[in-house]
Amino acid sequence: MTNWRTAAGAIPPLDETSMAAARARQDLLTKPQGSLGRLETLSIQLAGITGQPRPRLPRKAVIVMAGDHGVVRNGVSAYPSEVTPQMVLNFLAGGAAINVLARQAAARVTVVDVGVNYDFAAVDGLMHRKVAYGAADFTRTPALTAAQADAALQVGLDVVEAEIAAGLDLLATGDMGIGNTTPSAAIVAALSGRPVASVTGRGTGVDTAGLARKVAAIEAALALHRPDPADAFDVLCKVGGLEIAGLAGTIIGAASHRIPVVIDGFISGAAALIAVGLAPAARAYIVPSHRSVEIGHTAIFELLGTQPLFDLDLRLGEGTGAVLAFHLVEAACRILDEMATFAEAGVTGRE
Amino acid sequence: MTNWRTAAGAIPPLDETSMAAARARQDLLTKPQGSLGRLETLSIQLAGITGQPRPRLPRKAVIVMAGDHGVVRNGVSAYPSEVTPQMVLNFLAGGAAINVLARQAAARVTVVDVGVNYDFAAVDGLMHRKVAYGAADFTRTPALTAAQADAALQVGLDVVEAEIAAGLDLLATGDMGIGNTTPSAAIVAALSGRPVASVTGRGTGVDTAGLARKVAAIEAALALHRPDPADAFDVLCKVGGLEIAGLAGTIIGAASHRIPVVIDGFISGAAALIAVGLAPAARAYIVPSHRSVEIGHTAIFELLGTQPLFDLDLRLGEGTGAVLAFHLVEAACRILDEMATFAEAGVTGRE
Repeated sequence: MTNWRTAAGAIPPLDETSMAAARARQDLLTKPQGSLGRLETLSIQLAGITGQPRPRLPRKAVIVMAGDHGVVRNGVSAYPSEVTPQMVLNFLAGGAAINVLARQAAARVTVVDVGVNYDFAAVDGLMHRKVAYGAADFTRTPALTAAQADAALQVGLDVVEAEIAAGLDLLATGDMGIGNTTPSAAIVAALSGRPVASVTGRGTGVDTAGLARKVAAIEAALALHRPDPADAFDVLCKVGGLEIAGLAGTIIGAASHRIPVVIDGFISGAAALIAVGLAPAARAYIVPSHRSVEIGHTAIFELLGTQPLFDLDLRLGEGTGAVLAFHLVEAACRILDEMATFAEAGVTGRE
Repeated sequence: MTNWRTAAGAIPPLDETSMAAARARQDLLTKPQGSLGRLETLSIQLAGITGQPRPRLPRKAVIVMAGDHGVVRNGVSAYPSEVTPQMVLNFLAGGAAINVLARQAAARVTVVDVGVNYDFAAVDGLMHRKVAYGAADFTRTPALTAAQADAALQVGLDVVEAEIAAGLDLLATGDMGIGNTTPSAAIVAALSGRPVASVTGRGTGVDTAGLARKVAAIEAALALHRPDPADAFDVLCKVGGLEIAGLAGTIIGAASHRIPVVIDGFISGAAALIAVGLAPAARAYIVPSHRSVEIGHTAIFELLGTQPLFDLDLRLGEGTGAVLAFHLVEAACRILDEMATFAEAGVTGRE
């Protein structure tokens, strides 16, 4: 197993030769140049990521990291923490939204207990990599110790390397953790410097009083711990979470192996900010999916320097939006690979 | 074969009982209520269209209507008219973008010559339903005679009824016709009353001088023919096209048989406006797909009272955006049908 810090330092730049070949081919295909918009730019990015001028990505997986959050004691969520393990069991039984969409996409679902406040010892089908029984209540102490954050990042790297060993061309990130829009908003506020209220939304549907408690909890944590926006590891420890750390490690691991990684919604986006903070070269390997209902998501796209592919008013997490986007990734690859050129089809070009 | 006017008068309202059942089930599934956003509302619409509380739509097709446009004589397009038949042959050979995306979606591609300025008599695999060798140059005479418009609408109905006879659960509309963003913009301007320049874009990529010629041609046609915005048939005859009429007939036919019809970009959108003008009950059967680069597309969504599902900067036509959206339609059906309920999964609800 590679150490996550080693992997973070070993992410190659995109392959410019393959990108140039893909770009040149797009302009020969039987369509007005650029008329397939983001499918074309996506295909070029995928060529650069994989180092293949005409990539095909048949082996797909979504890694769902699960963890709990002590901050829920402050009344920041519409659902109780016991839902985290219940939903993990639902994932393993195949009944959750992510299972349905992954079946549609022919993608594996790998569920990881990196920090759930429940003992799954006897449960089959789960990756048992618990670092702690949840993050601490960050209104009182840092969410994670440095050792916990380090261990959870390593879990993310280990899990993605196991997926690669099983055969992987395309990865999605997903999350489960009651309360985890709160640390995600805290990360966005810490890294962007924006007012907490401007990046904090209702999560699974907390009421107006709950939203006020959520903003107050984040403001208290930022005032207490003063995370350093130039130090993503510091931000992760002070206001992050174990599944967020695990996903950051997953993103770094995917990038280090030239695997495109499709990022789900607000929590995955916060993890991507941590990953890019720890390993700036990982940014080029990120494929966006959807813009969620969470108001802070826009700030994430701005910090990542990308834009979502679609906006379906999703706010579920689990990797659902990312797995939906697999279809667009595959479409981009197929267009590049399968379309006829003007010369092959005998079609006249522009006047 | 049904007459298109009979079909237009026989479109049933959506089935409220199936919609209520779908809505109730969505609220029992293991996710925060409403957290799958437009996938949930789409599933409810599909239940109402099909009359099935948990619809599944495995048999899919895209109908691509092809026609030419005399208005191209005015220098309104970046490509010559000979590309229309060349691309029809490319569709039949399987090399175009719509073929690639339809293969991905497991959808049939049915290509119809309803008005191409080329003799395809010896070509296999094409539906030979030519009404005329293209629409007339509407800067001089109406684009279509009443008899031509009537015949092309009937082609649309006949083709969709043939698809239904072959087995059809989900339909997409597509178009091919060099110059056809010009009549589409004219239709949008006529029906919306908006200034021509505000709804006219660059189509396949005409330059600034070409765009000015395009706006001038449309303004001249509207001044000459004064189409009645309250009479969609009049608008279709004066500034429409044969493939636009054919697609309007297709939409009416699909609605009359309770088949959901996914609308592609600007040309399909103009056809949908004509269809809804001729048969207002068809509106409920329309499923939007993408917002194209064409600036007039937003006006179409406003007139249809719907919003696109995604925006990938597409501007190709052929049905490409609509067939991409099949994946979201299928996802909506699968979510409704396959997810576990809170009770089935033993998951706790809101606090």
